[in-house]
Amino acid sequence: MRGQIEFFFSPRTVVVVGASRKPGKVGYELLRNLREMFRGVLYAVNPEAREILGVPCYPNLASIPEDIDVAVVSVPAEKVLEVAEEAGKKGVKGLIVISGGFKEVGAEGLEREKKLIEIVKKYGMRLIGPNCVGVYVPKTGMNTLFLSKERQGYPTHGFIAFASQSGAFGSAVLDWAAMRGIGISKFVSYGNKADVDEVDVLLYLKNDEDTRVITLYIEGIENGAEFFKVLGEVTKYKPVVVLKSGRTEAGARAASSHTGSLAGSDSIYDAVFKQSGAIRAYSMEELFDLAMGLAMQPPAAGERVVVLTVGGGSGVMATDALSELGLKVPKLSDSTVSKLRKILLPFASPYNPVDVTGSAVDEHLVEAIDILLTSEDQIDAVMWLPYYMVPGITPELNKKFLERVKKVFRETNRVVPIVGVATGGSYTAIYAKEAESMGIPMYVSPERAAKVIKALVDYGRWLKRTGYFDYHIEKFRRTFLTH
Amino acid sequence: MRGQIEFFFSPRTVVVVGASRKPGKVGYELLRNLREMFRGVLYAVNPEAREILGVPCYPNLASIPEDIDVAVVSVPAEKVLEVAEEAGKKGVKGLIVISGGFKEVGAEGLEREKKLIEIVKKYGMRLIGPNCVGVYVPKTGMNTLFLSKERQGYPTHGFIAFASQSGAFGSAVLDWAAMRGIGISKFVSYGNKADVDEVDVLLYLKNDEDTRVITLYIEGIENGAEFFKVLGEVTKYKPVVVLKSGRTEAGARAASSHTGSLAGSDSIYDAVFKQSGAIRAYSMEELFDLAMGLAMQPPAAGERVVVLTVGGGSGVMATDALSELGLKVPKLSDSTVSKLRKILLPFASPYNPVDVTGSAVDEHLVEAIDILLTSEDQIDAVMWLPYYMVPGITPELNKKFLERVKKVFRETNRVVPIVGVATGGSYTAIYAKEAESMGIPMYVSPERAAKVIKALVDYGRWLKRTGYFDYHIEKFRRTFLTH
Repeated sequence: MRGQIEFFFSPRTVVVVGASRKPGKVGYELLRNLREMFRGVLYAVNPEAREILGVPCYPNLASIPEDIDVAVVSVPAEKVLEVAEEAGKKGVKGLIVISGGFKEVGAEGLEREKKLIEIVKKYGMRLIGPNCVGVYVPKTGMNTLFLSKERQGYPTHGFIAFASQSGAFGSAVLDWAAMRGIGISKFVSYGNKADVDEVDVLLYLKNDEDTRVITLYIEGIENGAEFFKVLGEVTKYKPVVVLKSGRTEAGARAASSHTGSLAGSDSIYDAVFKQSGAIRAYSMEELFDLAMGLAMQPPAAGERVVVLTVGGGSGVMATDALSELGLKVPKLSDSTVSKLRKILLPFASPYNPVDVTGSAVDEHLVEAIDILLTSEDQIDAVMWLPYYMVPGITPELNKKFLERVKKVFRETNRVVPIVGVATGGSYTAIYAKEAESMGIPMYVSPERAAKVIKALVDYGRWLKRTGYFDYHIEKFRRTFLTH
Repeated sequence: MRGQIEFFFSPRTVVVVGASRKPGKVGYELLRNLREMFRGVLYAVNPEAREILGVPCYPNLASIPEDIDVAVVSVPAEKVLEVAEEAGKKGVKGLIVISGGFKEVGAEGLEREKKLIEIVKKYGMRLIGPNCVGVYVPKTGMNTLFLSKERQGYPTHGFIAFASQSGAFGSAVLDWAAMRGIGISKFVSYGNKADVDEVDVLLYLKNDEDTRVITLYIEGIENGAEFFKVLGEVTKYKPVVVLKSGRTEAGARAASSHTGSLAGSDSIYDAVFKQSGAIRAYSMEELFDLAMGLAMQPPAAGERVVVLTVGGGSGVMATDALSELGLKVPKLSDSTVSKLRKILLPFASPYNPVDVTGSAVDEHLVEAIDILLTSEDQIDAVMWLPYYMVPGITPELNKKFLERVKKVFRETNRVVPIVGVATGGSYTAIYAKEAESMGIPMYVSPERAAKVIKALVDYGRWLKRTGYFDYHIEKFRRTFLTH
């Protein structure tokens, strides 16, 4: 059934068919990664070995003395059908076919792929691939990527799911995420999508408790109607961020020669993404910037943003970036301005941006956020720019600031997203990381943070339209305020 | 005279007036930074001490038994005029006045600032500030920033000069640059610009041998006519990248309350920047992305870009990003396609993007770049996307690739900019860094690299218009080919 693919991500038993003893070979690196990471039971099939890397080897699937959840297949294309047939007889639940040599190589391969699908259907199995890198799940250690650990980093467990039409790009992104400390709940790259496709993945991830936000890299969609229907359903519950390439004529031509995708007109895609509540990103970094923000903060109820900054220049840049995205950085009411003036330094600016200046101490930011969040002004989101390095800011700032925010959220009806900016080096990075661990996503520049606020505003609008806004606010209250 | 400000960056003797023994005070941290970094002779003025941090202290400037190049002034605003007078009598060449309490605080301060300018003029001194963080020069250790090393990182020597209207933002950017390994030739933040301003800095940096690219953060320009005249002169010799904030109405309002800048209409700024050959950036990261690219690569003679990639998905994204910026990713000629087909793998793509695929070995990239650079196709720039992590790519790739590029550049008339993309983690970062040390700027995503190519195209167009294109190509040949 559509979306019933949990066993691919959390199998109890996995077998690598086509395991090899030769370092550098896909069948070796695959087994080595699983051997090191997978927390279930692992077998290998290789007629010429009794064990490889300590993993027990059998001459074929039939002779393995246990039920198998997932068979990872890395044998020459000509042998895949035979293995699939064996797997069906053995009662294997799912195949992940890494091997290439199918639809992507022309008529002969297409024929082979059709036969593979027939076998899979006949036995009621599911199939990821062929011609794919498969799945990576930090929590269970299920990992069918075949680049060695020396060259490829693997991210830790986190709340972002990532599905990529391109295996190479998907691997590179995981590698990048590992270095950047971005956690992943589930990764999947489905190659030729002979069976499991975006729809299965969306339906599965919708109910996956470990996933707060779904990110997708796609070049083209075949079953558009079904995809967008499911997408529009899933986005009510979880944000979906999409990086869609092949947007331009030249890009679409390139996509067609890469994955055979017919990219179609981008303005149509754009309209349908909007109608389905998906958020578009335009680069890998943006994909994850938006995902982090959407995972950690509630949707915004409107487009009025307050900028609260320690640095005047950054405040100006923040205002530009927000305005250029169509958001408002409105003047504050006289009453709010006069309350701010009372607690700020004489040369600070109580307008919007609220600029506490580089001479500020922690309390200026803490009192200011309190005044802003309890004011009668309509404030839909806050961009917060602490400069951790200035002399008056102490290592306690995050704690004090977050405690005050939570207090106000608890005592009032108001909940607004707060997105942070911390431009700086190693000292700053420590406290930015700390703020993130406390629930505020932090970005290196106001321009990047502004795009995140825009996504929260767009997502909020979608949720209001579909009637799911309060559901998300309540969910946020439950997680953020008890955290 | 305009631009004659070398002594601020490479002084022989420096004195800190208002040196303090109290850690945390500006007069202490300032002295400590200079004490640790400055490679010239350092004195301090403090009537109550004979030495601080091992630096000899005098009760006043007059009693210092040596000529002084630069006096760094950090005393209360009321005492600054007196110090300036003393400095004039002592024959000090330049003042860097860190102290605030001038134009930025209203009428009284404005009066004080006018008097300060009078004194400076009377004695033929120059002045940076007041109300500024001053200069930082890794090569000489001249550093008037006053944040402690524990909170603020200082970048190493490099070829990018950075001038910032905002001191706090300037400091944060240096801190970020230090962490990211971006080198700086000269940094200056001139605060109220009572004397030294952007024009002085541009004229100075134009002739500064250590500076290949000039970056500016500005909120507003007062002496517009002079500034743009000088800018148009400087950009013939060196690229100038400008991050101008206060672009939107709300941003301009914020800028006005930050530095009192009248931001003016952004479309006018945009036009004048274009007419002066400056390149605009729209975020801190973009400012330095463009600066790195412009410093390391020659200008482009046109807008036709070839994408040479190991990853198909990245090739599609690269094509989109280039097209969206108005650049061309044209089809290659039949003859070039057939030459490429001969040396590539059967399932590789010999079109544009040229996709050698993840099964490629080093030689596929090396032979492909040779064919492209020696083809009869008009190719104005190359975006190169090696995936260092794929099995067939060896640690020798950069060396082999660069050697071949240099060979072709040497043997032909052709020189085109090459900009690289390396999406990935720690392993990839090592080789990206290596490629940069060999002269190819590397970016984490095709979108960022595409903006750099756009800048090289725009700069090339400007240089052709002003007749300085060949000068830059020759300069590049001299540095890159003998490197």
